[in-house]
Amino acid sequence: MSETLDLTEVLSRLLRAERILLLCHKNPDGDTLGSAAALYHALKKLGKEQVAVLCADLIPARYDYMQMERFTGQFEPGYVVAVDVASIQLFGDAVREYAERVDLCIDHHASNAGYADALYLDAEASATAEIIFQLVEKMGIELDPLIADCIYTGISTDTGCFLFGNTTARCHEVAARLMQAGAHVRDLNLVLFETKSRARLAIESIALSHLEYHFDDRCAMIYMTREQIESTGVEASDLEGLTSLPRQIEGVEVGITLRQLPSGSYKISVRTMPGVDACAICTRLGGGGHAQAAGCELMGGLDNAKQAILAEVERELCRES
Amino acid sequence: MSETLDLTEVLSRLLRAERILLLCHKNPDGDTLGSAAALYHALKKLGKEQVAVLCADLIPARYDYMQMERFTGQFEPGYVVAVDVASIQLFGDAVREYAERVDLCIDHHASNAGYADALYLDAEASATAEIIFQLVEKMGIELDPLIADCIYTGISTDTGCFLFGNTTARCHEVAARLMQAGAHVRDLNLVLFETKSRARLAIESIALSHLEYHFDDRCAMIYMTREQIESTGVEASDLEGLTSLPRQIEGVEVGITLRQLPSGSYKISVRTMPGVDACAICTRLGGGGHAQAAGCELMGGLDNAKQAILAEVERELCRES
Repeated sequence: MSETLDLTEVLSRLLRAERILLLCHKNPDGDTLGSAAALYHALKKLGKEQVAVLCADLIPARYDYMQMERFTGQFEPGYVVAVDVASIQLFGDAVREYAERVDLCIDHHASNAGYADALYLDAEASATAEIIFQLVEKMGIELDPLIADCIYTGISTDTGCFLFGNTTARCHEVAARLMQAGAHVRDLNLVLFETKSRARLAIESIALSHLEYHFDDRCAMIYMTREQIESTGVEASDLEGLTSLPRQIEGVEVGITLRQLPSGSYKISVRTMPGVDACAICTRLGGGGHAQAAGCELMGGLDNAKQAILAEVERELCRES
Repeated sequence: MSETLDLTEVLSRLLRAERILLLCHKNPDGDTLGSAAALYHALKKLGKEQVAVLCADLIPARYDYMQMERFTGQFEPGYVVAVDVASIQLFGDAVREYAERVDLCIDHHASNAGYADALYLDAEASATAEIIFQLVEKMGIELDPLIADCIYTGISTDTGCFLFGNTTARCHEVAARLMQAGAHVRDLNLVLFETKSRARLAIESIALSHLEYHFDDRCAMIYMTREQIESTGVEASDLEGLTSLPRQIEGVEVGITLRQLPSGSYKISVRTMPGVDACAICTRLGGGGHAQAAGCELMGGLDNAKQAILAEVERELCRES
């Protein structure tokens, strides 16, 4: 297990570090990228000359405004920091070389596996970016509009724009501070939450035509095969938002979204109402996440994947009721 | 035109008032109801014995948690207060008797017509409920969880849960204060933003099948006839959320939603990207609203309504480009 640090010690190690490599998780979301980018800019402000960000997967172009330098081997990393990465599997094979030598992990997932040498974990934080906000405050550097944009991206995406159960008074306080610091909240919200591609609308329409109900309508499920995904031309990152859809239906306690990956296996997203543990469902299938939002990946065809996840959903619903 | 008041004078008049009738606008939304309910509970805390809320239309059951007393003629109103009502037409005919003798209007719509004897207008406020928050603070009464829930309802619904362009640092600060005061934000968000009826999903699917693009795809339009609305059994209040859909499509600057009312006329909602004035489009057709979200109502059939609104959209797009 990792050595547990407090925020003062995190800062002290970062101040001593040189040639800092920041690692994100695969299928990067706004929080892992926003946290990495905010930390990147903060470290540059502290005078670190060599800092760069690495992610196994392509970073979607809509995050270009974060302006972080990508790691392409331009230096030999002296200190490796993972942000928002709960387990070593979540790095992706392309960055395995560095994933196995993480000096420090900063995370808000209670399920963090403790794979790093040292860990700063705050499971009360809505997003890892909320921790980065505290860290930036502690650094005593100016919260400029760019850093504010990066932190806002992390907090807003992980809370579904202040919608999900992880939203706290502190989230709102930080958001107010970020807006005062010049975060371009209107532009960011338009990009992050209010833009759907035509392809996204098309796949949404297909997914809705597949809507299935299980266990007395307590569970709703949608799925997308690779063929359907490719027929619409929708991007992987575009599919993320769909995962909230089945749980939103009145009376539904567990919403399941299955989407086939290029490898043929199924990525499964589980969203639950309070009282049903999404993380428990996914952990038993080798995945993980939060109490109301978790995920896993299952090999085999659609029917196998459905059966496996439904069996675990049933087990959880029986346990709860 | 109305006499313009400051908040101190608003409070002083409310303190002197007895038998207070609070008026909401027709087709009530979270802000007019949340503002009225918060003010209702605050006035009760100040010791006012006779206070009640009146709205021309049915108040949707999902707002029952606000626990305000409805006006059913139980007293002869001594002081009439309108909250979040920008023009006299927005009261609805059923409450016309009181709409014509409004003593005080509290509003955040810059387009407020000044129909009341006295007006407190703060066009910088994200929602009328944000003004009510200030008023409650000024009253020196305790911000209890129920009042906090009502104010949160107004601010969160008018900002689309902190998403729209009217979201400010102050919104987030107030939200943090409301959470600290015990607002049931998770439960409210589930009810207000994360619950879709099966009927709502069905009408969404129908509306998407009608999607039309105009003016080089700068404008997207959906419509719902009365027959379609009734075939799904969707409630009017359920349709509100659909209005944000067409504008969310990548590249679309003006999103138009037409829904046929029981009278046969069409209620038109216009949502725009910054730079295109939704209020200007709707004002020319007898409606009004905000720069990025406005509405109007058009008589005649679907084709007439489409033609009329598209002509105004074109005029506005030409003016802008």
